[in-house]
Amino acid sequence: HNPFVLIAGPCLIESKQLIDETAATIKEITEKLNIPFIFKASFDKANRSSINSERGPGIEKGLEILAMVKEKYNIPVTSDIHEPHQAKLAGEVLDIIQIPAFLCRQTDLLVAAAKTGKIVNVKKGQFLAPLDMKNVVVKLRESGNEKVLLTERGTTFGYNNLVVDMRSLPIMRDLDVPVVFDATHSVQIPGGQGTTTGGKREYVSVLARAAAAVGIDALFTEVHPDPDQAMSDGPNMIKLDDLEELLSKVKEIDQIVKKN
Amino acid sequence: HNPFVLIAGPCLIESKQLIDETAATIKEITEKLNIPFIFKASFDKANRSSINSERGPGIEKGLEILAMVKEKYNIPVTSDIHEPHQAKLAGEVLDIIQIPAFLCRQTDLLVAAAKTGKIVNVKKGQFLAPLDMKNVVVKLRESGNEKVLLTERGTTFGYNNLVVDMRSLPIMRDLDVPVVFDATHSVQIPGGQGTTTGGKREYVSVLARAAAAVGIDALFTEVHPDPDQAMSDGPNMIKLDDLEELLSKVKEIDQIVKKN
Amino acid sequence: HNPFVLIAGPCLIESKQLIDETAATIKEITEKLNIPFIFKASFDKANRSSINSERGPGIEKGLEILAMVKEKYNIPVTSDIHEPHQAKLAGEVLDIIQIPAFLCRQTDLLVAAAKTGKIVNVKKGQFLAPLDMKNVVVKLRESGNEKVLLTERGTTFGYNNLVVDMRSLPIMRDLDVPVVFDATHSVQIPGGQGTTTGGKREYVSVLARAAAAVGIDALFTEVHPDPDQAMSDGPNMIKLDDLEELLSKVKEIDQIVKKN
Amino acid sequence: HNPFVLIAGPCLIESKQLIDETAATIKEITEKLNIPFIFKASFDKANRSSINSERGPGIEKGLEILAMVKEKYNIPVTSDIHEPHQAKLAGEVLDIIQIPAFLCRQTDLLVAAAKTGKIVNVKKGQFLAPLDMKNVVVKLRESGNEKVLLTERGTTFGYNNLVVDMRSLPIMRDLDVPVVFDATHSVQIPGGQGTTTGGKREYVSVLARAAAAVGIDALFTEVHPDPDQAMSDGPNMIKLDDLEELLSKVKEIDQIVKKN
Repeated sequence: HNPFVLIAGPCLIESKQLIDETAATIKEITEKLNIPFIFKASFDKANRSSINSERGPGIEKGLEILAMVKEKYNIPVTSDIHEPHQAKLAGEVLDIIQIPAFLCRQTDLLVAAAKTGKIVNVKKGQFLAPLDMKNVVVKLRESGNEKVLLTERGTTFGYNNLVVDMRSLPIMRDLDVPVVFDATHSVQIPGGQGTTTGGKREYVSVLARAAAAVGIDALFTEVHPDPDQAMSDGPNMIKLDDLEELLSKVKEIDQIVKKN
Repeated sequence: HNPFVLIAGPCLIESKQLIDETAATIKEITEKLNIPFIFKASFDKANRSSINSERGPGIEKGLEILAMVKEKYNIPVTSDIHEPHQAKLAGEVLDIIQIPAFLCRQTDLLVAAAKTGKIVNVKKGQFLAPLDMKNVVVKLRESGNEKVLLTERGTTFGYNNLVVDMRSLPIMRDLDVPVVFDATHSVQIPGGQGTTTGGKREYVSVLARAAAAVGIDALFTEVHPDPDQAMSDGPNMIKLDDLEELLSKVKEIDQIVKKN
Repeated sequence: HNPFVLIAGPCLIESKQLIDETAATIKEITEKLNIPFIFKASFDKANRSSINSERGPGIEKGLEILAMVKEKYNIPVTSDIHEPHQAKLAGEVLDIIQIPAFLCRQTDLLVAAAKTGKIVNVKKGQFLAPLDMKNVVVKLRESGNEKVLLTERGTTFGYNNLVVDMRSLPIMRDLDVPVVFDATHSVQIPGGQGTTTGGKREYVSVLARAAAAVGIDALFTEVHPDPDQAMSDGPNMIKLDDLEELLSKVKEIDQIVKKN
Repeated sequence: HNPFVLIAGPCLIESKQLIDETAATIKEITEKLNIPFIFKASFDKANRSSINSERGPGIEKGLEILAMVKEKYNIPVTSDIHEPHQAKLAGEVLDIIQIPAFLCRQTDLLVAAAKTGKIVNVKKGQFLAPLDMKNVVVKLRESGNEKVLLTERGTTFGYNNLVVDMRSLPIMRDLDVPVVFDATHSVQIPGGQGTTTGGKREYVSVLARAAAAVGIDALFTEVHPDPDQAMSDGPNMIKLDDLEELLSKVKEIDQIVKKN
């Protein structure tokens, strides 16, 4: 098994400046720790709790900023799409096309993403058993794309709560795909704040360490210089200042788990 | 409170003939029982478990068949859409535009549906608490559409199972919207058959009676002359032959509950 | 199917006077509505959230009060036991011995209750699937007692919440036992108030009506003249003043469901 | 933080010979790895799924065997009690008195265990939120015993399944008690085999590693020379031959997590 890869960035492309600065800082940290780094940020938050929440710059402006990151820092970039027609444009810039959890069974979206030939990273729906992701993988493979990642981001657990079932990581890995653990969305408290999604940032490192101990191919974590002022996902994003410590621990655990 | 309305039809527009015959039979039953009837069938199953499952005739052919039903039997018709661009076309034929449960938080889809001016019926996501549907209702209202229905169709309960929390009906009704109970999708067993969704048809009448006793504005139930041969949702659809008995009981309970 | 029976009374034997007055009032209501009535109250709350909560008069004083009710009002009485050694004494007074949900798999307790020869009413553990109650029934039957009742009182649903799965009523009935629906414990919010169990009294009638529509042999409901002042289970008990209206509706639904 | 302690042994005291041999082997392994070792086995399985399952030698014979282990191998021993009257006798031999998960709210049992002055290890009920264990801790402390351990062993997750919420470990630790992770009961499949509890042994090491990465004070694991022939809990116990490898990994992770 290869060492884990980091997929990270702010939840939303709030501004070119935020994206640039965050990418620079994460790149510096990951080079120091020798961890491969893929930058992630969304150009559109298409399923915000509230209609009045900020959604982002949209696909064209967003991809332009991600292309800048890709070139300036020489790193792969990823983002999520929400409708099939976005796949082609996204595939021209992104190295990995991410499919949101709520949309993980939308056949047309999966097929369109697969057809780009890019890696497709599907987040497991909060409403699905890990083994049910087999049908999702088959949809992508039968569309001619074998480059599939699956991401665990928590499962519906009663109302307004998610639980991470650590068994899902080996179950999804047994589908012969690399598995990503999304440590920041996993600590969301859906509906926990009325018109926005809440979160418990203090459990991000707890769950990230646990997942690394189980065995993951990539860690996904949203980071922001000042999460409490972020336009989206603030309560569950971690602070950029806390990233290095988190990654150091995860790396040590990853090494132990993957040695001989 | 008004007596309950029936929203019913086969899951999928398998053929013009199936739709015509089923609509005719349900119309006959509901006229006999004096229950208002809205015909429902899908033109595209956009999130089938497997990529190899039948999806349906598509939006144009499907709407044509629904328009035929609407005219021939003089009844309202409803169907579900999956992408924003479908809303306009759908709104030219459908009396109620249905939003699938997995997509109940996709803002663009909700806004597009709202803009048609037609009634919008949103199925509560299996991953949402009933109160969280408030944000969905607000999305529609702020898009200028007050004609909103909410449908209960079960909540994620561990893996490969749904549970109906009967408290959700009064909770959603308190959002000042009519509430629909979907008795057939509520008995689905997601992932219960490997590459298709399973179901427990024997609990449809159990849950329909319970929901009527709680208080509903409409009952949604998929029916098919021969569910075991249906192209979609067979295990949870009820037989056309069993519909009259189910509706008679539901009607009696509905009357008791709604009399002052 | 016979019409439903009512099992009711205050949660706790707070005082002889409370028990006497409540039994008198319920008897009056049930005679008026022609509903068979079994009086229930606990002599010891053995698993209160907090060690400082009131527990009750204990088994000897408690049974004495229940014996008074039984004789004065000529009605059967029931209460719950918590340890095997209590079964014999309890069996001398009680017509039905109730086994608490947390203890529904304690073999010695079940066997001791069975050996009394009295009816044994086991509440389904919040942690058990309905079908798993089969093993409980077998434990009682193999101890020589065929007079078994099973009670649905909600299932663990995430943290600090219960959900009633209405499918459990027919599933348990298929074990060839009469099934009771406990409408007041089903609306508990475990841990919902820090050191006591919370509850949502407003859903008692909702769930009672739903269960009656599904089909039950008995309705269990805790009632109190002034629940907000009750020593135990106040938030989920209903007011004595609201009992008649609840029972009237349940009776009408019960009649519809049970007529052939 | 101190390095983790191992609590281990066969589920049931099947025979003096099994206990002796298993204790000897685990002692050898833990001395080699320098892990403190507490022996655990049950003298009575008081809540077996089926009335026909083996229950064990009973308290007197069982404690005699545990006393032998304690003396011969010079290690602490623990076992579980089910009724308050057993506490005194158990306290004469056991170093830690374990309270089963189903019984974790039974006040009399907790108080009786506390009164022995021995360490009391309470398993978190499958039906409780981690924070709700606060009331359990208070019950023990108000009974004069500050030596409390809490054990995570999985939470009810739909029917016939448990999920381990890794957040529960820090939540319970915040109650100022050492926290134990029970890796073998956490992989049980309740009711998964009709008349016995099933299990998924392959996830024991997955979850043990994850819990160690989160941070635990002790690891609890049931081991047996030949689990498939065990009288109880076979499907979830691990093989004695696999223990050393499991412990080595857990120890390495434990060291990383607890250093500075």
